[in-house]
Amino acid sequence: MDIKEEIHQMGRQALEASRGLAKLSTDAKNAILLAMADRLLADEAVILAANAKDIAAAEANGLTAAMVDRLRLDHDRLVAVADGVRQVAALPDPVGEVLADWDRPKGIHIQQVRVPIGVIGIIFESRPNVTSDAAVLCFKTGNATILRGGKEAIHSNTAIAAALQAGGAAAGLPEHSIQLIPFTERESVQHMAQMDRYLDLIIPRGGAGLIEAVVSLARMPVIKHYDGICHTYLHGAADLKMAVDITVNAKTHKPSVCNALETLLVDHSIAEVFLPEVGAALRDRGVELRADEAAAGILGDAAVPATEADWTAEYLDLILAVKVVDDLDAAIAHINEFGSHHSDCIVTADQAAADRFMAEVDSAVVFWNTSTRFSDGEEFGFGAEIGISTDKLHARGPMALRELTSYKYLVRSDGVVR
Amino acid sequence: MDIKEEIHQMGRQALEASRGLAKLSTDAKNAILLAMADRLLADEAVILAANAKDIAAAEANGLTAAMVDRLRLDHDRLVAVADGVRQVAALPDPVGEVLADWDRPKGIHIQQVRVPIGVIGIIFESRPNVTSDAAVLCFKTGNATILRGGKEAIHSNTAIAAALQAGGAAAGLPEHSIQLIPFTERESVQHMAQMDRYLDLIIPRGGAGLIEAVVSLARMPVIKHYDGICHTYLHGAADLKMAVDITVNAKTHKPSVCNALETLLVDHSIAEVFLPEVGAALRDRGVELRADEAAAGILGDAAVPATEADWTAEYLDLILAVKVVDDLDAAIAHINEFGSHHSDCIVTADQAAADRFMAEVDSAVVFWNTSTRFSDGEEFGFGAEIGISTDKLHARGPMALRELTSYKYLVRSDGVVR
Repeated sequence: MDIKEEIHQMGRQALEASRGLAKLSTDAKNAILLAMADRLLADEAVILAANAKDIAAAEANGLTAAMVDRLRLDHDRLVAVADGVRQVAALPDPVGEVLADWDRPKGIHIQQVRVPIGVIGIIFESRPNVTSDAAVLCFKTGNATILRGGKEAIHSNTAIAAALQAGGAAAGLPEHSIQLIPFTERESVQHMAQMDRYLDLIIPRGGAGLIEAVVSLARMPVIKHYDGICHTYLHGAADLKMAVDITVNAKTHKPSVCNALETLLVDHSIAEVFLPEVGAALRDRGVELRADEAAAGILGDAAVPATEADWTAEYLDLILAVKVVDDLDAAIAHINEFGSHHSDCIVTADQAAADRFMAEVDSAVVFWNTSTRFSDGEEFGFGAEIGISTDKLHARGPMALRELTSYKYLVRSDGVVR
Repeated sequence: MDIKEEIHQMGRQALEASRGLAKLSTDAKNAILLAMADRLLADEAVILAANAKDIAAAEANGLTAAMVDRLRLDHDRLVAVADGVRQVAALPDPVGEVLADWDRPKGIHIQQVRVPIGVIGIIFESRPNVTSDAAVLCFKTGNATILRGGKEAIHSNTAIAAALQAGGAAAGLPEHSIQLIPFTERESVQHMAQMDRYLDLIIPRGGAGLIEAVVSLARMPVIKHYDGICHTYLHGAADLKMAVDITVNAKTHKPSVCNALETLLVDHSIAEVFLPEVGAALRDRGVELRADEAAAGILGDAAVPATEADWTAEYLDLILAVKVVDDLDAAIAHINEFGSHHSDCIVTADQAAADRFMAEVDSAVVFWNTSTRFSDGEEFGFGAEIGISTDKLHARGPMALRELTSYKYLVRSDGVVR
């Protein structure tokens, strides 16, 4: 059997599994999740041995220390993975929720009810914990998954998937509910992306190159988690201390994540006063400032000149683009033009300005006087997240269990016809 | 400027227009809609003259009488189009609706609010009324539209779009909110489908060939309205009179539409009694029956033999495929395998059987003792519909104004940081 045939067979099996998954009760699903968590811990030796193979290959292939670290599992990290599975078991199950319920004059009763999506493909890069994180969120919502991880983590992913399958099977998990594609050839991505007969949705979790490859090939819906080019705009009516606190927090609290601040916009009416203070606080924490001409004129030696590329940069590092803007309109226009429609903030004491900013900035999450670091499923109270969608359809912003469901309509009557 | 450049320019203009549209109040949008309806009627002579050109070309090109009729506009049909616009003005505006609203322990307040999607591409075939129907639903929800109709209706579509634009402009419609692609070359579909920088969504309204072309090319989400291969299953505990009424209504009330019945499944336990009665009632109304072996054995001369192709046929005509199934499981399996996940019904007095059918049939709308003809935005009380989605993401089943919106999160605090 060639790769395409084998992947299509996995698709057929996943569709079959999804029919069984849709029938599981919440209690049955939670029992399966706890059995999966137990098995992950019971298989620690096997999983860490598999991981050691990946680490050895990564080092032999000269991957950077940061990349090797993302690959690495150890006892504590595996415990964290298993704890993540238990947390998903503890979350409410959205499947079966009645979203709407109404009668119509001709005597029919209509219900709109949450149901699983069906079969979800997850294509991800190096971190092996995604195998478990993604599979269990999809399973909790009654979906079958086909996982395709990066070749750097193939041994770790295989061992983790095997533990989930074996632990789940002992507790009643339908066969083929969670499948890992054993091929690391690039063509396997193409076959998944074209397999719309079996896959209802693909979620690529990785860099822009991976997402672009999936988008250009996919026949089924793709939910994209693109870069976070997040802005904070210090408005003319901003409080200075709040402006400093929010800017410093959004930039330096965890610079490597998608909700970290990347471009600071400062209203020209306050730039002379605010920029030196904000700049000094950032410089104290090791942040490199890349300033447009107006900001550089105020910051002086504290900044280096920005180029056009800085306005669309997701640094994920202690670097910040800084620009002076004329007014609220200019800030909104800049964000809508150069941002990634992810998470953007205005700092101001002026409610009217905040209202306009929140209405007109076309982003998944828009903040008023709040750090963009709150653009996060945990902080939103969702309990878990599969990512931050930068798409507008089906799921936008922090994406958790509800966003992994669809709905159907149930219509009942006593023989009503038109 | 070549076709691609011109279409990309329309995309840029639509994105710009969408920023203005998102700011319009409901009252402003409704006033614009009424002005559009007035202008459609005021331009009757221009629109009907344009339509006459399309009709003449269609007749010269040997289109069938049915196709020419779908193209044709007259006074009454134009009044109906204008009335449709007024009805959309009268519907509630979903934009701005607060979907959820909660506080988090760290002191942030989160709102989830409905917003327009942005720019929507509609690709449709011959019927010129779609130009108005689709554009005004998208406009009511604050979206800009780029419309691309079939070449058979190009003069009619151009005249209708011009009336909407002119009527709207006089009442404050932002320029380029509604644009019609003037090119009828096939490549224009390709350029739209690749233009994900500007188009947030494409909705193809037409046959399977059109939808397939869009799906294989599109980089942005596509909401598909595929065939309705709708089933009714007469369960062993069905009431005979209800079974006859529902089957006859679903098949014959309007055979040309996607929610019409195409395959009748009859439980073997009642087939000997029910099939002759149901068959006779259908034959009285001119329905041709195409029966599997077991059904043919009962129906005799009243049926012709079905072939494998009949189980996936959307006849849109007075033809019905008929099959005897062993039990509820076999009925569910047949529908999930051969259906189009659109609208399917069980007739039974047994609640447990109905519950299982409704849970396990993987379709947008599942009916109990109710004609599939109720799978319809008007019948659901949505006031209008842009189609019946056979997709599972974002919109499923009857798709109306709410399904033409996205949402964003608004997060407020008094300077909260992590």
